[in-house]
Amino acid sequence: MVALNLNKDVVTLTAALVDIESESLDEQKIADAVEAQLVKLTHLKVERDGHTIVARTDLGRDQRVAIAGHLDTVPANGNLPSRLEGDLLYGLGSCDMKGGVAIALRLAKQLTDPNRDITFVFYEGEEIAHEFNGLGRIAREKPELLAGDFAILMEPSDAIVEAGCQGTLRFDVIVRGERAHSARAWKGSNAIHSAAPILHRLVGYAPRWVEIDGLTYREGLNAVGISGGVSGNVIPDEARVTVNFRFAPDLDEEEALEHVRGVFDGYELEVTDSAPGAMPGLDVPAAVAFIEAVGGEVKPKFGWTDVAQFTQLGIPAVNFGPGDPLLAHKAEEHVPVDQLVQVEEKLVAWLTA
Amino acid sequence: MVALNLNKDVVTLTAALVDIESESLDEQKIADAVEAQLVKLTHLKVERDGHTIVARTDLGRDQRVAIAGHLDTVPANGNLPSRLEGDLLYGLGSCDMKGGVAIALRLAKQLTDPNRDITFVFYEGEEIAHEFNGLGRIAREKPELLAGDFAILMEPSDAIVEAGCQGTLRFDVIVRGERAHSARAWKGSNAIHSAAPILHRLVGYAPRWVEIDGLTYREGLNAVGISGGVSGNVIPDEARVTVNFRFAPDLDEEEALEHVRGVFDGYELEVTDSAPGAMPGLDVPAAVAFIEAVGGEVKPKFGWTDVAQFTQLGIPAVNFGPGDPLLAHKAEEHVPVDQLVQVEEKLVAWLTA
Repeated sequence: MVALNLNKDVVTLTAALVDIESESLDEQKIADAVEAQLVKLTHLKVERDGHTIVARTDLGRDQRVAIAGHLDTVPANGNLPSRLEGDLLYGLGSCDMKGGVAIALRLAKQLTDPNRDITFVFYEGEEIAHEFNGLGRIAREKPELLAGDFAILMEPSDAIVEAGCQGTLRFDVIVRGERAHSARAWKGSNAIHSAAPILHRLVGYAPRWVEIDGLTYREGLNAVGISGGVSGNVIPDEARVTVNFRFAPDLDEEEALEHVRGVFDGYELEVTDSAPGAMPGLDVPAAVAFIEAVGGEVKPKFGWTDVAQFTQLGIPAVNFGPGDPLLAHKAEEHVPVDQLVQVEEKLVAWLTA
Repeated sequence: MVALNLNKDVVTLTAALVDIESESLDEQKIADAVEAQLVKLTHLKVERDGHTIVARTDLGRDQRVAIAGHLDTVPANGNLPSRLEGDLLYGLGSCDMKGGVAIALRLAKQLTDPNRDITFVFYEGEEIAHEFNGLGRIAREKPELLAGDFAILMEPSDAIVEAGCQGTLRFDVIVRGERAHSARAWKGSNAIHSAAPILHRLVGYAPRWVEIDGLTYREGLNAVGISGGVSGNVIPDEARVTVNFRFAPDLDEEEALEHVRGVFDGYELEVTDSAPGAMPGLDVPAAVAFIEAVGGEVKPKFGWTDVAQFTQLGIPAVNFGPGDPLLAHKAEEHVPVDQLVQVEEKLVAWLTA
């Protein structure tokens, strides 16, 4: 097992986490490494569930804050191992979100006597279908582990608080045809050719820009997969376009589904994944107080994050982490060293003031 | 091993062959069963190469005819096992082309003293990329095994002689984009969306109808596969449309490729398979004589068949087999009992007259 050293600086620790490959559904190694360090810390109660780890102080403070980060990444894209170039740490997950995980691990080690009780959550399965999400499983099966007054998701947010998050809906648009030998195509019906109007609708789609609580959310409707074909000389009888709809938090899941049913009117739809957005909640005192403590600036969150899971449990939550969210899932993913340092300093200050 | 009985009627034998599953690349079982029967026939010299079997008489006749059929099928489509319904035998491969194979096997058994020497060829890998074709391998590596004056491919032709065959070209049309998180799609470039014009060109393509030697060939350009996608929340950076071009025998392979490069001008093309067509050759005496002997009627062959391999070796060849070629690769594939009987009778008559 890889031994993490929580006494090392945050950049070294982030690099060590990046170098433990942890594509979704393959988180055992990184979860083992994280758990091994946390169980050494006597001020924390550690509980593991699958490859998700919850570690809590129990100091009887007035308030409890959850600090959460996912351990998994999207598939590698020629961006491993980590490498430091000047003031930037490059590598798969450096930005989304092993930088945030490194900070949380260092907080867990350092803050033996924080001013609020803290619940650290390190979890699996965030980058794939919602059903695999470790935080979601805990929220459903052991919600008492997540109880608290406020939550911070350490998703990349450029070291600025991001409020709310967009919802996500994933579905297949299906077209059917009839098989025939490709030398006599006119005897069948080509399902791949029949998928042309689906792509056409995607290309022509004009996404909404939605303003809520002074923040502007930006929607998106995109093919993330396409498949079809039986063999090299058969006219295919089925084609599927997998589409991801990212919707502003003024729509609930049902309204989002209704909207895409309209866009793909006349086609068969098969929903494979759905998760609600979260309203920014900038009227909640705990959120406003935290935003003021770490600098006052706030932006909308475009991506879906587990902020939505906390808000569904009635816990106000924001995103606050190092790294440019626009770099997540890109080959050149990286995190600036100064943001790693800044975010850690701001959280330490807020939790020890 | 399944034991075939070459003394049974042609319908029973066809059904037995259908019931031995033999999707391309999985022909060992059927080849073993065929070889086991052929080696018992002392009037034949049997040679096996991979899952391809060549069995020849050696009677010193003036003429030698090759009779050939492939043993493989496309993937099953809910059409196994075989079943007889009235005068039709249903099942995967019944038409393409285990009916023809059954007739050839019965000829091999019966014709101990034919008027022409006969070379029977039972071969693998016809339904997939050209490189796997057993007849092609023999033509390249042991062409002397195929030497002769005339060849009959027993591909389904509705018991009427089909002359010539169309060529086939298979290639991927590739579009590239740039990955990004699907929540911030505007930072990347969606390769699947960029494939829309490719499908559009396929839908709008008007295939040629070409007349040669009084026969009308009908071309076709069709997607037979499509793929793209990295994961459910990543804007994909590559999409591929696999296209099959079936071209009339007035084009050679190079001209066919030039044509599709024009159709997909501006896109990257990757050729995966190519096989030439064959001109009908209705001016060749051996072909004309055979056509007259079996009824005088002749049609063009739309599909690619191994007729092209024989014509490339300088051996005139035609298609003549039981079953409607329009039913090949379809779920309801079947062969009429009367065609099985007729084709066998006509070949027996021609080879014993």
